[in-house]
Amino acid sequence: MTLRGRKKGETVPQGVVVRLPVYFRYLTELESAGTERISSAQIGEALDFTAAQIRSDLSYFGSFGQQGYGYNVKELLDQVKQILGITRKHSMVLVGAGNLGKAIGSYEWFREEGFDIKAIFDVDPHLIGNYHGGCAIRSIDEISTYLRENPTDIGIIATPKSAGQSVCDLLVEGGVRSIWNFSPAHLSVPDHVIVENIHLTDSLLRLAFRLNEHNLGNS
Amino acid sequence: MTLRGRKKGETVPQGVVVRLPVYFRYLTELESAGTERISSAQIGEALDFTAAQIRSDLSYFGSFGQQGYGYNVKELLDQVKQILGITRKHSMVLVGAGNLGKAIGSYEWFREEGFDIKAIFDVDPHLIGNYHGGCAIRSIDEISTYLRENPTDIGIIATPKSAGQSVCDLLVEGGVRSIWNFSPAHLSVPDHVIVENIHLTDSLLRLAFRLNEHNLGNS
Repeated sequence: MTLRGRKKGETVPQGVVVRLPVYFRYLTELESAGTERISSAQIGEALDFTAAQIRSDLSYFGSFGQQGYGYNVKELLDQVKQILGITRKHSMVLVGAGNLGKAIGSYEWFREEGFDIKAIFDVDPHLIGNYHGGCAIRSIDEISTYLRENPTDIGIIATPKSAGQSVCDLLVEGGVRSIWNFSPAHLSVPDHVIVENIHLTDSLLRLAFRLNEHNLGNS
Repeated sequence: MTLRGRKKGETVPQGVVVRLPVYFRYLTELESAGTERISSAQIGEALDFTAAQIRSDLSYFGSFGQQGYGYNVKELLDQVKQILGITRKHSMVLVGAGNLGKAIGSYEWFREEGFDIKAIFDVDPHLIGNYHGGCAIRSIDEISTYLRENPTDIGIIATPKSAGQSVCDLLVEGGVRSIWNFSPAHLSVPDHVIVENIHLTDSLLRLAFRLNEHNLGNS
């Protein structure tokens, strides 16, 4: 796979990485609605970005769209999928089968986009052996053997904070290079491992801060 | 409440807002561990920020710490809590009592920090009338009456995408000014309403992008 227009080794700015999934979601909606063609101005209006921003982001990966015609929705979506790397399947394991793990494991969207949860692990003897979303819940003691036999792209950590780092270490030792961390733990990983955090507490605290800042501003 | 050192009407930069919860989490850990004193260099090392960054962030809100002594952990934590606005309680309602809603409703940390889920709403007749975390699940038809009688700070949306905007509209009509959105919907709100999104799909797509970018870089 090559990314048209992108120089080898060039790193994509964080801002573009953050906006790519937003384009993906919006274009998926347009495609479902049967929209065939869209201009950068229309995308910009829907997403609160400027048209120039959108053209700049997409041109980073090659030349799309035509002056006066705009973008073909299906073509652009296919390109965005290729840029995101989701034209191939990703194998995942999920550690933690509590409410949060179950919520993640039930998310239909993942499977539709080729992110397959292949195995679920937990420490709770009452959960081990149960099935969730067609997947058996296994003992965490089996994870090293599992990962040796089943190379895995992404490890999802949905454990309490106290277990976060030790689970992360098991995943990394098992060759997993991408960690999706839902635990409140601040994870230490080697340089070759990527971590994407969902810190619920941070998100709620940001909301509280902005709410209170807003209230102060009004007083 | 006044924020020492901060000019009235001055907006706090987004970068500071993002780092504040990180300070909060770290200082909470230090306090639990019984640590009494810490320097900005030590905080920086633990959190991968520079000491100068930390001093700059905190000085934004007033003068903390003493040359040669560092910060008193408990005092600094109290100040960060005040800055975040979490010295007061926040009332919340949760809409959507599926796996994700249940996971959010079970999060002990929220209650400990004064974020109380006072009511839960859903459309599913099989869920309505059940209890979750000591809170009855009510019909979404009752939400407008509830909000009129119980002014609420934060509305949590944990519904499927299709219901996201209509639930958001009900919350806003009911006087809720902060929305914590877990649905994949892109919400439209009036200017006085704050939205904080947890987009699971965006987060996973960013991870996939970085994983694939990484793989390309290695090839």
